[in-house]
Amino acid sequence: MAHIAEIIAVGTELLLGNIANTNAQELSQALSSLGINVYWHTVVGDNAGRLREAVERARNRADIIITTGGLGPTYDDLTKQTICRAFGRELVLHPDIVARIRARYERNLHSPMPENNVRQAELPVDCIIFDNPVGTAPGCAFEENGVHVLMLPGPPFEMRTMLERWAIPYLRRLSEAVIVSRDIMTFGMGESQIEALLRDKMERMTNPTLATYAKPSEVRLRATAKAASAEAAEAMLSPVVSDVTALLGDIVYGVDVRGLEYVCVSGLRERGLTLATAESCTGGRLAARLTAIPGVSAVYRGGVVSYWTQIKADVLGVPADTLDAYGAVSEPTARAMAECVCRVTGAPVGVSVTGVAGPDRDERGVDVGIVYIGLATPDGTFCRALDLGNRRRDILQNLAGNHAFDLLRRWLSGLPLEL
Amino acid sequence: MAHIAEIIAVGTELLLGNIANTNAQELSQALSSLGINVYWHTVVGDNAGRLREAVERARNRADIIITTGGLGPTYDDLTKQTICRAFGRELVLHPDIVARIRARYERNLHSPMPENNVRQAELPVDCIIFDNPVGTAPGCAFEENGVHVLMLPGPPFEMRTMLERWAIPYLRRLSEAVIVSRDIMTFGMGESQIEALLRDKMERMTNPTLATYAKPSEVRLRATAKAASAEAAEAMLSPVVSDVTALLGDIVYGVDVRGLEYVCVSGLRERGLTLATAESCTGGRLAARLTAIPGVSAVYRGGVVSYWTQIKADVLGVPADTLDAYGAVSEPTARAMAECVCRVTGAPVGVSVTGVAGPDRDERGVDVGIVYIGLATPDGTFCRALDLGNRRRDILQNLAGNHAFDLLRRWLSGLPLEL
Repeated sequence: MAHIAEIIAVGTELLLGNIANTNAQELSQALSSLGINVYWHTVVGDNAGRLREAVERARNRADIIITTGGLGPTYDDLTKQTICRAFGRELVLHPDIVARIRARYERNLHSPMPENNVRQAELPVDCIIFDNPVGTAPGCAFEENGVHVLMLPGPPFEMRTMLERWAIPYLRRLSEAVIVSRDIMTFGMGESQIEALLRDKMERMTNPTLATYAKPSEVRLRATAKAASAEAAEAMLSPVVSDVTALLGDIVYGVDVRGLEYVCVSGLRERGLTLATAESCTGGRLAARLTAIPGVSAVYRGGVVSYWTQIKADVLGVPADTLDAYGAVSEPTARAMAECVCRVTGAPVGVSVTGVAGPDRDERGVDVGIVYIGLATPDGTFCRALDLGNRRRDILQNLAGNHAFDLLRRWLSGLPLEL
Repeated sequence: MAHIAEIIAVGTELLLGNIANTNAQELSQALSSLGINVYWHTVVGDNAGRLREAVERARNRADIIITTGGLGPTYDDLTKQTICRAFGRELVLHPDIVARIRARYERNLHSPMPENNVRQAELPVDCIIFDNPVGTAPGCAFEENGVHVLMLPGPPFEMRTMLERWAIPYLRRLSEAVIVSRDIMTFGMGESQIEALLRDKMERMTNPTLATYAKPSEVRLRATAKAASAEAAEAMLSPVVSDVTALLGDIVYGVDVRGLEYVCVSGLRERGLTLATAESCTGGRLAARLTAIPGVSAVYRGGVVSYWTQIKADVLGVPADTLDAYGAVSEPTARAMAECVCRVTGAPVGVSVTGVAGPDRDERGVDVGIVYIGLATPDGTFCRALDLGNRRRDILQNLAGNHAFDLLRRWLSGLPLEL
């Protein structure tokens, strides 16, 4: 039978919104990759009564309880005391840990250990001690009538270190299954359209499962399999991936890739090509997405943000009569921008975006959401003309960028260029 | 008596650790600034039984329940159905909302509305409808025996929009006092330094309160006052703002402004100047941040992303001997990039960034984190040389961008250019 885990984060700073509960996210990722179901996250403040309530609840609906926070030296750090009360355990002082904390203070902080830090050396009887190499508060774990309780410190860096060093090995011994996921990345179809295509399939599936996660203009499909071994899970997943890919066709741009720009960068690498960008309404977003990728300089030369029409002429060299005759937001200008940025940078491939991101029409009265993507290649120059509708500026800019990368990746992989 | 709120986030993607629960953080910030106590965050998956359990628990320990997520069009979106069952309310279909969603599809997405979207137009009887201007799923609120239930969509930008537009006004009516906040924005000092300067003040203050929110390289100080009227709250805040500003000096770049680039844009407007950018390691992030601001074309002409050294020479016209003698990451190159981008774009002001974002040293062995900011102005050209240390690529790129905007805003407002 699969384990059920509940994550309890302790800290008033979470309830005040000073920080997000990223610890719960990291723990959840680790637990699901161990095949442990996480059914609940709970956040309580530094309050013994409510923490006690959360623990009592958790022990009745989960067999693994992981707490983060409340292990500090101050009076409002109550996790160990409260959990010991709930499980009827004594706290015992570990002089060797006191000595270690004292030494750490003198070594790293060059100051004597404040006496209240002694509380950090008190741990439940008969627990497994999680030594903390990056902080003063040790964590611990114990098992009581089939319920495993793990306590980890709150500071994210300490939590992560203790998770990898202690919690994951402890939990691996408990879990019999592994969980493996595949992310099928798509561009060009809305979530509800994709759901309509896959709904029957998704409802029938129990293991592997298939779920959709939508961002504006992009839908990720995650197939998740639970099995005795990674190999077995992989074997269960590959037919799902091929089925879905067959069903959705070339809107699937990759599996387990992080975004359209990553597919473009590897496509350019494989073809031994370099790229330059010419951006108007996306205002540097193509460049920024490309340069977020380490080592992209192997395939990306740079580009021009020709926000003013005059820059399109002066820096890129778009012919003035093209701009006069058709305007800055037009197919001829998009084509010229892509060809010109190749000329000025020496790149064999150039992609351009010109459009109206709003909130107002452009000076020629072109509507918000009208976008032209240009793509200059050794095979010739192509254009995708789009009416993305009157949406929020940042969504339009991001969507236009996705279309630019989609046009490029389609050319790189020899697919039909149109959606 | 003060209200007690519980935030329930619905979504299996949270329990799998695919995303962090940033919605709970934003809601908590808003609630605490309204003087509403948040005692619990709960996260459940797309599971009717566990969501029902969470709702039953919440209604017994809180008088405000806010849910995020589960309002989508797909079969696993269960929030409205489950809450209506818990509170014994019917769901009623609103044909006008169906029409609105249908129109939105045709207008913005140029595709017919999938029929399963009709579910999004079903809302509890006698609820206040939260119209969703940035998505298809409307939210809603109702009150049942003193318990207020608010349902908001899950996608963070939709949640934020609905929070500001609907939830905050709704909740403000419940709380007897008016809460007003001022955000004091700073750049150039770490959170712990600022807290060391302000600790005594912050600890003594109860109303107004003063809290710090840190991002890498930027610290926001929020002063919050609770009073009978907005005017009274404003009156309580202005001395706090002046005190803090006096204490921190010119690291305060604005009050209630959204970021350094906004201060730069208004400074350029006031001075009647236009700007161009030349970016190497920031790879288009300056341009992207500027072009995120509507109407920025009044002051921003565009720029060059000179990622390859050759582009610095060919497109910007940085002298080859400067590049050979000092390298691409050097003060002379940063100065030349800023001056050259003014020349090629005709802008009177140019800002440049060249540096090593990592993960590896550059070909000349310059360390990760070494960054030079250039600023060309009618008063002459300036440079800020930085060693930002070996940090994560995205943090370095963002930090370098903030330094570029800080140098510019200091010049625009006649402040000392160095931190």
